[in-house]
Amino acid sequence: MSAPSRILVVGSVALDSIRTPYGVVEEALGGSASYFSCSASHFAPVSMVAVVGDDFPKPHVEMFERRGIDTSGLEVAAGRTFRWRGEYMAELGHAHTLETQLNVFADFHPKLDDGHRKAPFVFLANIDPDLQLEVLSQMKRPMLTLSDTMNYWIARKPDRVFEVLRRVDIALLNEEEAKALAGETHLAKAADKLLEAGANAVIIKKGEHGALFHSREERFITPAYPVMALTDPTGAGDSFAGGFIGMLARFGRTDGEALRQAMACGTAMASIAIESFSPQRLAETDPNEIDGRVRSLHSMVHYDLFPMF
Amino acid sequence: MSAPSRILVVGSVALDSIRTPYGVVEEALGGSASYFSCSASHFAPVSMVAVVGDDFPKPHVEMFERRGIDTSGLEVAAGRTFRWRGEYMAELGHAHTLETQLNVFADFHPKLDDGHRKAPFVFLANIDPDLQLEVLSQMKRPMLTLSDTMNYWIARKPDRVFEVLRRVDIALLNEEEAKALAGETHLAKAADKLLEAGANAVIIKKGEHGALFHSREERFITPAYPVMALTDPTGAGDSFAGGFIGMLARFGRTDGEALRQAMACGTAMASIAIESFSPQRLAETDPNEIDGRVRSLHSMVHYDLFPMF
Repeated sequence: MSAPSRILVVGSVALDSIRTPYGVVEEALGGSASYFSCSASHFAPVSMVAVVGDDFPKPHVEMFERRGIDTSGLEVAAGRTFRWRGEYMAELGHAHTLETQLNVFADFHPKLDDGHRKAPFVFLANIDPDLQLEVLSQMKRPMLTLSDTMNYWIARKPDRVFEVLRRVDIALLNEEEAKALAGETHLAKAADKLLEAGANAVIIKKGEHGALFHSREERFITPAYPVMALTDPTGAGDSFAGGFIGMLARFGRTDGEALRQAMACGTAMASIAIESFSPQRLAETDPNEIDGRVRSLHSMVHYDLFPMF
Repeated sequence: MSAPSRILVVGSVALDSIRTPYGVVEEALGGSASYFSCSASHFAPVSMVAVVGDDFPKPHVEMFERRGIDTSGLEVAAGRTFRWRGEYMAELGHAHTLETQLNVFADFHPKLDDGHRKAPFVFLANIDPDLQLEVLSQMKRPMLTLSDTMNYWIARKPDRVFEVLRRVDIALLNEEEAKALAGETHLAKAADKLLEAGANAVIIKKGEHGALFHSREERFITPAYPVMALTDPTGAGDSFAGGFIGMLARFGRTDGEALRQAMACGTAMASIAIESFSPQRLAETDPNEIDGRVRSLHSMVHYDLFPMF
């Protein structure tokens, strides 16, 4: 096996205050780049481009560094770190946002050095699609680019979100976002419409119902891992992205077989992430646990087809 | 391959009047035994035990017979056939019942002859759990018994529904029924609770999100087939049951590999059923189409796991 490829993530690092039916945290580490990096760093080296305020607790940076995450692109700006306060009800499907303080994140402008630009694998976490496009235009022939977005941008800048979809190799969306962007309530039709609109491939996350990969060549479905110790669903999508792109970067592969196993890796990492508040379980897990969940997911769908008629 | 085994189904034959966003039918063939038989008869011989009134249209019986279905157990009682009138809204998740006329079905008492009692495979469709138990007690060492139920019986006779669960090899439930019966909102926990309560195995149907098989030994998930021509979801569960048990009866197998492929057969038959009103598409489909959908479902989940760490 050749050395794993480097992954660049551009996203948010935040302090989250969250209440779920299973507990409460105040100002815990959060943000898309945090979840993604902790997840992907189990597979391949990660460089993080994000911004925090001068109040950001050092232990979080030290945790990133213990996980081998390159934080040279983690800018420290004068002011307060991005803060989010949210709450999940019994069904845990949707976060109810109580408060968003963008703080230094409001003026975030990703600064990429030459090393960042050469990263073969790129995750554009949920930020303004104009910033996502700016990052994309600076990249030097990456092997694979993956984008995320959210309803906020779909409602405000649909054209730019579509432009990102056309420019990246794979767009990651949850079910609701895919339906909203496609203007279609039937999920399989929504996926088709996004491809017709120019997307190369989409991954649609369905939470406890798994995720589907859809391109012109491939249609693939992964079930969710049956988590018993569900604690906080925050960061599940970014953790999925970390396992997905991490696995591909580890082997430098983007073929169909690798994409399928990468979906299982993403699913495994998301299942670990939601077993704690913050990316705590992600930071602490190990290859044994990850491998066990991926094998378990594989065994839940695998069989050898025999002829019937 | 040895000859396919016979399947006994005990359930309803009805005349359905249905409105969906895709159309309307009046007094079309319906009922659990109708959907199940049309589905299973593509795989193995089926004997139907049900009751109709003396107004039941002959062409429906002729259609059953053209499909090789043994209708010797289809009792014709004096009076009107069971009628159901329902409506589905845009999301198609739930039927809204407008009218139920039980008619001759109100006094349905399954009459099994010796041939019926010897059937190696048995489907107890959604009828009073007391009747399901009565049928079970008459069967002569069947290889595999599968039961269905509905919220109506879970609310009124939960103890009898549990008794059926303990007596059959596999209980088929939809997600809502499984949660209601287990008294648990988390699906994986609900499945565990049903096993703790004595079920040998459960299949939980999740509609467009597929189905899961759960026993002490096996945990297996099948995605739904992405249907583009969705017309009427009525009968999807019974059609699933028909493909599932049909495949097992075709090969006389009940091992884990066969159960997994049987889940795909069930899924394929459900996807065909919902592309028309009534079991019309089920009656008209052929081995080629069924095989194509099963292969397609297999390819949506199949990959060969390679070592990562």
